[in-house]
Amino acid sequence: MPEDQDTRTAPTDEDLRTLDAHWRAANYLAAGQIYLLANPLLTEPLRPEHIKPRLLGHWGTSPGLNLVYTHLNRVIGARGLDALCVWGPGHGGPSVLANSWLEGSYSEKYPDVGRDAPGMARLFRQFSFPGGVPSHVAPEVPGSIHEGGELGYSLAHAYGAALDNPGLLVACVIGDGEAETGPLAASWHSNKFLDPVHDGAVLPILHLNGYKIANPTVLSRIPEAELDALLRGYGHEPIHVAGDDPATVHRVMAQAMDTALDRIATAQRAAREGGATGRVSWPVIVLRTPKGWTGPAEVDGVPVENTWRSHQVPLPGVRENPEHLHQLEAWLRSYRPEELFDAEGRPVADVLACVPEGARRLGATPYANGGLLLRELPMPDLGDFAVPVDKPGTTLHEPTRVLGDLLRQVVKDTAGRRDFRLVGPDETASNRLQAVYDVSGKAWQAGTLDVDEHLDPHGRVMEILSEHLCQGWLEGYLLTGRHGLFSCYEAFVHIVDSMANQHIKWLKTSRELPWRAPIASLNYLLTSHVWRQDHNGFSHQDPGFVDHVLNKSPEVVRVYLPPDANTLLSVADHALRSRDYVNVVVAGKQPCFDWLSMDAARVHCARGAGIWEWAGTENGGTPDVVLGCAGDVPTQEVLAAAQLLRRHLPELAVRVVNVVDLTRLLPREEHPHGMTDFEYDGLFTTDKPVIFAYHGYPWLIHRLAYRRTGHEHLHVRGYKESGTTTTPFDMVVRNDLDRYRLVMDVIDRVPGLAVRAAAVRQRMADARTLHHDWIRAHGTDLPEVAEWSWNA
Amino acid sequence: MPEDQDTRTAPTDEDLRTLDAHWRAANYLAAGQIYLLANPLLTEPLRPEHIKPRLLGHWGTSPGLNLVYTHLNRVIGARGLDALCVWGPGHGGPSVLANSWLEGSYSEKYPDVGRDAPGMARLFRQFSFPGGVPSHVAPEVPGSIHEGGELGYSLAHAYGAALDNPGLLVACVIGDGEAETGPLAASWHSNKFLDPVHDGAVLPILHLNGYKIANPTVLSRIPEAELDALLRGYGHEPIHVAGDDPATVHRVMAQAMDTALDRIATAQRAAREGGATGRVSWPVIVLRTPKGWTGPAEVDGVPVENTWRSHQVPLPGVRENPEHLHQLEAWLRSYRPEELFDAEGRPVADVLACVPEGARRLGATPYANGGLLLRELPMPDLGDFAVPVDKPGTTLHEPTRVLGDLLRQVVKDTAGRRDFRLVGPDETASNRLQAVYDVSGKAWQAGTLDVDEHLDPHGRVMEILSEHLCQGWLEGYLLTGRHGLFSCYEAFVHIVDSMANQHIKWLKTSRELPWRAPIASLNYLLTSHVWRQDHNGFSHQDPGFVDHVLNKSPEVVRVYLPPDANTLLSVADHALRSRDYVNVVVAGKQPCFDWLSMDAARVHCARGAGIWEWAGTENGGTPDVVLGCAGDVPTQEVLAAAQLLRRHLPELAVRVVNVVDLTRLLPREEHPHGMTDFEYDGLFTTDKPVIFAYHGYPWLIHRLAYRRTGHEHLHVRGYKESGTTTTPFDMVVRNDLDRYRLVMDVIDRVPGLAVRAAAVRQRMADARTLHHDWIRAHGTDLPEVAEWSWNA
Repeated sequence: MPEDQDTRTAPTDEDLRTLDAHWRAANYLAAGQIYLLANPLLTEPLRPEHIKPRLLGHWGTSPGLNLVYTHLNRVIGARGLDALCVWGPGHGGPSVLANSWLEGSYSEKYPDVGRDAPGMARLFRQFSFPGGVPSHVAPEVPGSIHEGGELGYSLAHAYGAALDNPGLLVACVIGDGEAETGPLAASWHSNKFLDPVHDGAVLPILHLNGYKIANPTVLSRIPEAELDALLRGYGHEPIHVAGDDPATVHRVMAQAMDTALDRIATAQRAAREGGATGRVSWPVIVLRTPKGWTGPAEVDGVPVENTWRSHQVPLPGVRENPEHLHQLEAWLRSYRPEELFDAEGRPVADVLACVPEGARRLGATPYANGGLLLRELPMPDLGDFAVPVDKPGTTLHEPTRVLGDLLRQVVKDTAGRRDFRLVGPDETASNRLQAVYDVSGKAWQAGTLDVDEHLDPHGRVMEILSEHLCQGWLEGYLLTGRHGLFSCYEAFVHIVDSMANQHIKWLKTSRELPWRAPIASLNYLLTSHVWRQDHNGFSHQDPGFVDHVLNKSPEVVRVYLPPDANTLLSVADHALRSRDYVNVVVAGKQPCFDWLSMDAARVHCARGAGIWEWAGTENGGTPDVVLGCAGDVPTQEVLAAAQLLRRHLPELAVRVVNVVDLTRLLPREEHPHGMTDFEYDGLFTTDKPVIFAYHGYPWLIHRLAYRRTGHEHLHVRGYKESGTTTTPFDMVVRNDLDRYRLVMDVIDRVPGLAVRAAAVRQRMADARTLHHDWIRAHGTDLPEVAEWSWNA
Repeated sequence: MPEDQDTRTAPTDEDLRTLDAHWRAANYLAAGQIYLLANPLLTEPLRPEHIKPRLLGHWGTSPGLNLVYTHLNRVIGARGLDALCVWGPGHGGPSVLANSWLEGSYSEKYPDVGRDAPGMARLFRQFSFPGGVPSHVAPEVPGSIHEGGELGYSLAHAYGAALDNPGLLVACVIGDGEAETGPLAASWHSNKFLDPVHDGAVLPILHLNGYKIANPTVLSRIPEAELDALLRGYGHEPIHVAGDDPATVHRVMAQAMDTALDRIATAQRAAREGGATGRVSWPVIVLRTPKGWTGPAEVDGVPVENTWRSHQVPLPGVRENPEHLHQLEAWLRSYRPEELFDAEGRPVADVLACVPEGARRLGATPYANGGLLLRELPMPDLGDFAVPVDKPGTTLHEPTRVLGDLLRQVVKDTAGRRDFRLVGPDETASNRLQAVYDVSGKAWQAGTLDVDEHLDPHGRVMEILSEHLCQGWLEGYLLTGRHGLFSCYEAFVHIVDSMANQHIKWLKTSRELPWRAPIASLNYLLTSHVWRQDHNGFSHQDPGFVDHVLNKSPEVVRVYLPPDANTLLSVADHALRSRDYVNVVVAGKQPCFDWLSMDAARVHCARGAGIWEWAGTENGGTPDVVLGCAGDVPTQEVLAAAQLLRRHLPELAVRVVNVVDLTRLLPREEHPHGMTDFEYDGLFTTDKPVIFAYHGYPWLIHRLAYRRTGHEHLHVRGYKESGTTTTPFDMVVRNDLDRYRLVMDVIDRVPGLAVRAAAVRQRMADARTLHHDWIRAHGTDLPEVAEWSWNA
């Protein structure tokens, strides 16, 4: 026995007997959910009509998950822990549902599924049944913060949950299939960012059941010494548990859990009380048990237990095949349900002996329903950070730098509470948010050198060159009731497209569950954007994340394109206060004209879209043309075009409309922020040409506005995948978004212009040629463009 | 010296001296590209006007890349190797450009940039200059198959290049920043799939220069023993090289290269000649050298060399700041250019001593211009695999299973050539393509058990639970001149959204380079799609990858939705023969009606969209309504709706239009496959209601067709993010894509229908209610729906 082990919690033989009873009950209930429509307690011989018509679910992973749930129950009770478990093999829905029903937390959330025979019948029937519950560990499942259907993010979620929760143990079951994914492989290094003082502990449990859908897994087929080296290389101390004899495995698993938790407690004490510094070698449990353990060993003459064939439904033909039916009955009766449930179908005392009390139960912990723990973020007065704007377009600021000052204050004001984190892939400073370092360093537990700056074992800014980890950590942090922001290069946020999908799906479903309390929104700040990646070039130019998220549930998705510093402050303030959304904010880090005062910015952002009277020439009448814009660079080009039009065609009535909240363009029926036709027509008219300069792919605007009356008059300019390493203005010229092109578009589309307009058009075309020649000769933009200002 | 080392290739002191000369020349040229507009040989004192107005580029990584290039040159020459290098730190464009200019391969591709003083001046000027070359290792760079701007995919690309190239060495420089990404972390396990007999070798060179943009890197700040354990855990034998004294590093690096290559040669001989089986512990070189090595040690009083501050441009103010200018000149002169280049600017013999000959040069290898090596894929006659169709809609097949038979033949016919691979994340059988196992097993070098099936150390089917690796391997394989197909669950292909972006960008640029020969297309088979993930539920339901790729360059992107087995064969045949595209094919694996004979399928697919006369009721006249469809499930529902209309409203003239090639809907100006308005109007009319049932998000069809005359009459049904675990028919009902809803849509939109239509509409609404109640009671679809057939 290792010297750091606390013997008081070691299980007795009686403990092991009741743990096995709990495990068998969970296995019975998991299999029952997959198969049974009726006869849940097997009080009569099993007949085909007791079997579901569609057999769905994943048996293979369930016995292993049940083992972990059972043994977590023991240590939570024995040690009085606050614990949460992230179930990486999320396909194992039957298992987690079974356990939460056993412990009673399920019936508390869903009183119609009581902890008795009728409730068990409902539990079985509803599983993977239309109108029932999904087959995965989804938001509907108590105790869950992780839908493991996609695979790859469990460990990052677990670390996110543990951050700033010093009293929390976050266990994390990692399937050996999931372990092959990139995000999971990188997640092991999260331990270089976990602070033993202010953060809780993560206990990874690598479950090697040996198989995926149809193949063995890599980590189960390398020598144990190699796996051991790998985990030590990741900075962990492995504890190995292996076997297929339940009694033996229970004993070894209990010992492993005790060893792991003792080590964790020792390390935390050393850091918190003993002043120990330096990185901890946290334990990891490697659990080798058979896939589909305790299920049918063979079916139709081929091995099933301990092979990939037990991944989903090991006996597929039960309704039609009497032999399969017979095997199923024998399998279910092998758990001896009559010893596990009383005549009313209630779990007997032995089964429940290991179950912890109240909110300590894994299905009842408020950490898995983070909205219950959420506190309002202390948001400072925006006036303290606003840039002064007397006249539009006379001063320049870097919007994200201005936001950095606001975030600095938020980080400072949460120093005691520690419930706000900033994550980013090595780009916080590159994105001009470095003011936050004044009040918090960057989390870092690995080695340091004198030359380092801002590294801090207790920091709340998190930087690693992995968008996956940034997203996964933040999701785990938000789902457990805290706040945060992810700043990312715009092009590379596509790396987490699929993670964003899953989080949006999670939120959509959660919003429909009355017992799930709202959590803080996931806020993206997308900067270093397409128009200002002219130095990195084509690979760094992609504005399509907005398109991606707008395919998702409108209840959840919000997209903002603030055109200057004060509008960015207003949008950020709104996003950080909001709940249950995914807010995508696209804003530049390069110097940008200030257009709106703070007061004007607030009003404009509250409206989401509006006429900038000062920029147009319509003077209260009907415009001849509308110049629409969304995004900082398009807004600048539209205003420059408006200025050119005022100079060269002063009789033309031009209206400028700026859109901050992109979903305002959608019909009201399609999105809660959508404008009514009355509002839309009031801004854009029903019959005048609209030249719209958009930050991203132009067809997105058509997709949002195609139902509008004036849609046939809408002409959109935007990024059309023409990029390279060049100057900022050349980028807009290449994509026909430049001021000269916009003026030409106006002249091409407004009927009845003066003859002089043709000459103006030619002048614009000449300006484009001049620009082209100049930049190729000098490598910079024309001074008239680079030094342009609105009031010139 | 290890006993397996071949002493014949060890470098002499003279070799080391000339290696250093080459390295200094490359460093000089890399720095020169970042800074100099003129005075390339420093023949006069450096003045501000010699300096570029915009200083762009990444110096930090360049000296390390130059060191690797120099030492690869040596071993390629000394050992007569065919080698390719993947430059993970793709930001280091100046370095790879410098080396290919030195070896002459650059001037061969770009004769206007000669290997002399005027050429050097052009080399410097064009770098990151408008109209010049991008700052990264982009397609424009000879010898490159990898744009390292996004980071994460270098090692997967390297493995893809090595597969089935037994004579090739693929070196791969992995930056310690990139090493933090998920995809890279998972890529290390690629060695479990590399066959020492039929594949070449991958030599990873993990370059620890210690810093990212603004932070230290994780792997450079863990103890060396931990890093060593990590790499051994990944299955590698590490060889460590560290230092900052060039002479020492040259000697140790040369020795490390020799050791690594000797070990590789020994392992390959053992497998190929000695019959050795079992996995090889391939070498990995860990190279620790300072970031920005040999650059300015300090700037403005703060350390720069060997810190993150040398990541990009270490001296930023050269034009304005005389001290910086002075430092730059001293830095450049420290390489002693006068010893490296003759008076005409040509590299002297010492510099070129290590450079290999002809096609062995890294910038000239045909492996990096794979189209040169590409052979036509032997495509069998589709007639041998077609399903017989006498009457539409009377027989059922699983389309992907039929495709599996075709792929089996392709795999068989390439058994000798070994230039076709199938990749998939553990889903080849799940996606019904298992016929291929008859002729090739699954690549596997890890341990095996008796229970295993189809594992094969020499297999060409590749399965790992990582979409990133599947995509990365296949990209590397295609870029080096081979063929392949990636089959993936539709929802989870979003995991590689960003990789697809980068590959499409690569192809777009490559197509514009005359010296880049066309390569085989990247073919996606997206199956297990949204409508048939009813068992896994909401997390597995996402058809948005099509939307994602359609934002990209139309020259490259093709999207196909074959509605049945024979159309899938035709589309697959076309995709597998094509070049330089990304083909996205969406097809079902569930039993699906056969609609078209092989001949009809060929004609229909060649047209891309067409009227299915047999399904409509217009009889040559003008239709009252058009039912459009794209995708297998929508086609089925449209045909069922057409059948209901024929029965209940026989006087209505209905036209059915099926779209296989989605980009046909785009205007001809927007996509090479786009229809003219004349064609479009001929199919869809200009004024009749069009009810369009689409596989994915409905607004995509509007985005494609908004410019068409009849667009205001277009009404699209599709997936609107309403999903869960339920029956197949309930899925279409939830999303209003079902036959009854489509009939109701027709009745709602066709003017002047008989009074009876109202009753028909009510009957359809009743059918939906009946369905809803039935499935909630029985858990299955109504028999009338489940057993529906077209000719009933």
